[in-house]
Amino acid sequence: MREIAILGIGQTPIAEQWEKSLRQLAGEALAAAMADAHIDAPQVQALCVGNMLSGPLNRQENIGALIADWAGLRNIEASKIEAACGSGAAAFRAGLMAVASGEHDVVAVVGVEKMTETGSSSTTSGLASAADADWEAAQGLSFVAINALVMRRYMHEFGWKHDDFAPFSINAHANAAHNPNARLHESITMKDYSRARMVADPINLLDASPIGDGAAAILLCPADRLHSNGHPIITVAASASATDSIAVHDRFDPMTLAAAQLSAQKAYTQAGVSPEDIDLFELHDAFSIMAALSLEACGFAERGQGVRLGLDDQIGPRGKVPVATRGGLKARGHPVGATGVYQLVELIQQLRGEAGATQVPDAKIGLAQNIGGSGATVVTHILRRN
Amino acid sequence: MREIAILGIGQTPIAEQWEKSLRQLAGEALAAAMADAHIDAPQVQALCVGNMLSGPLNRQENIGALIADWAGLRNIEASKIEAACGSGAAAFRAGLMAVASGEHDVVAVVGVEKMTETGSSSTTSGLASAADADWEAAQGLSFVAINALVMRRYMHEFGWKHDDFAPFSINAHANAAHNPNARLHESITMKDYSRARMVADPINLLDASPIGDGAAAILLCPADRLHSNGHPIITVAASASATDSIAVHDRFDPMTLAAAQLSAQKAYTQAGVSPEDIDLFELHDAFSIMAALSLEACGFAERGQGVRLGLDDQIGPRGKVPVATRGGLKARGHPVGATGVYQLVELIQQLRGEAGATQVPDAKIGLAQNIGGSGATVVTHILRRN
Repeated sequence: MREIAILGIGQTPIAEQWEKSLRQLAGEALAAAMADAHIDAPQVQALCVGNMLSGPLNRQENIGALIADWAGLRNIEASKIEAACGSGAAAFRAGLMAVASGEHDVVAVVGVEKMTETGSSSTTSGLASAADADWEAAQGLSFVAINALVMRRYMHEFGWKHDDFAPFSINAHANAAHNPNARLHESITMKDYSRARMVADPINLLDASPIGDGAAAILLCPADRLHSNGHPIITVAASASATDSIAVHDRFDPMTLAAAQLSAQKAYTQAGVSPEDIDLFELHDAFSIMAALSLEACGFAERGQGVRLGLDDQIGPRGKVPVATRGGLKARGHPVGATGVYQLVELIQQLRGEAGATQVPDAKIGLAQNIGGSGATVVTHILRRN
Repeated sequence: MREIAILGIGQTPIAEQWEKSLRQLAGEALAAAMADAHIDAPQVQALCVGNMLSGPLNRQENIGALIADWAGLRNIEASKIEAACGSGAAAFRAGLMAVASGEHDVVAVVGVEKMTETGSSSTTSGLASAADADWEAAQGLSFVAINALVMRRYMHEFGWKHDDFAPFSINAHANAAHNPNARLHESITMKDYSRARMVADPINLLDASPIGDGAAAILLCPADRLHSNGHPIITVAASASATDSIAVHDRFDPMTLAAAQLSAQKAYTQAGVSPEDIDLFELHDAFSIMAALSLEACGFAERGQGVRLGLDDQIGPRGKVPVATRGGLKARGHPVGATGVYQLVELIQQLRGEAGATQVPDAKIGLAQNIGGSGATVVTHILRRN
């Protein structure tokens, strides 16, 4: 593909934002990205929106046109891309293709989700639509319950205790404490983790990421057309996507995220790098089990050994594989369809050297992986500081 | 963009298909397209799904991965593209970009919607999500009501009577009678039209398109890699998309489909043709008023004069501007997120000379235009027989 560069980034805080509508959240992130890029609305030629639940939760579809109009981009091409919790990175990838095809030069990507204002039961039922409606959700399995089954099996098969997963949550919360846009700012201790209220055994409250309302945006352009915008030059070194069965029971090996593995392998090949070259990894820690499985799928640990990186103190900003450096899904928060764009925005902050107290020293090559469903749709990106 | 050719097409009938799930409908259309293309599943590299309402109506998102798996395409890249009733053509356009960018060579596009099995009130509320949830739907306006206001204004402003719209419906029904996949097969008369039950004044039952369950699929590849598949070679001469405000009251001129006009102009320029060169026009006749406005926006009639083409008997298969040649939304049916792909499949049938009793003689260049919302998101394609 044509080499593509980052023109600008923007984000809103993740919180309960009842006073703001879906379009307002998206518009704020887009305005911030345009300001960061030093460009005006008329330069933007297309908009890709990542969102999962606007239909059931906000009773609003057609949000490509809706947000374009609100953001001052009336008449440009716009549509929504949906891949459950992987929608954000899928929209980013659609934006890349719009530029790579030569169809557009300046493309805006925005991930947005507004999910705290409806009753909690409809949010739970909305999230269950990321799973197989006929063979999982219809049996009464919520999305957290599906992940709980996977975590229980992982503990059984590889001999880990629940407490062994604690470092993922402790690290995420410690990092989020320094991220002004994070949903949660409280550091947690091992004791907090052990004593947290059970949600779906063995997943407790501190294994699970909080939902939230928020939007994050990125502006893209061909690398050869990037004008000086005052930021270090960040380019997209690789973009790859793969799928797996939605229902976990249909997989050849429920302990392997095959789509994560496949898309990561493709991305490493495209970028010409291997896991050892990655300076940080914004992974999809919707549940702590997913953090472990993602590390394994992306080649940072052997099958069943992902938790060891946490226990060995290797996942902090100065560790061997820094993850969730701005809080991750666990503490920055998980506004589902927006999450993939937040991950990329945070990765870009790290590569620019703008990550403050949790800056990974001299970060040059970063990986971001966004997952829709329990490993069903996976989109992997590698970004590089030139 | 890299020149792209049609490798194969497939479709299911549009009907109340309660015995088939969403994935089954999509899988049938994809299997038919693969058979038509003489290729097997392992050759397909990516899947773009056009769908609007799987979340609220089928409680299922993440349908890219779901359908890929069911169709024998596990592990390939897949996602859903949503632009209300324009989702189908938006997915086709995403497929074009996936090929044009060089990312993939063989891409499958499927439009699918399953919408008759839920209660009618939730379908109506689902369809209203194509309109502005805060400023239209929240006032109690259903989607048909919004179009009724537009039609009433059009009649008032340009002096047309309700009966003047009849030719659109009569032509659509006459053509659908010969389409085995159409939702409705009954021809109608002027008397039927005049006497039809009112839905939202002035839109009566024969002004409105019926919803339905169905799926249509298209396989794409670069034109220079098309192997002989026994069909005439059809290429994509133009693809363009534009948006407008979702809320009709926010438009500069509510009687002009600005996004339809803009995307059609871009498409004509890309293809190097003008309206006179178009042999047939698969337009978005969700309501008869939309047929009139589409003809005007695409340059076949002056502002306010679209209905005249019907009254002058110019819209039949042997007329000057054949429209709805396989029944259109009005009688072939309108499974909303699938419609744009049905339009393109039917256009390809015409260009191949496979349209049977309603074949447009020697059709070489065809236009298809798919509209999401009352003109908010519009995707226009021109296809050509080489």
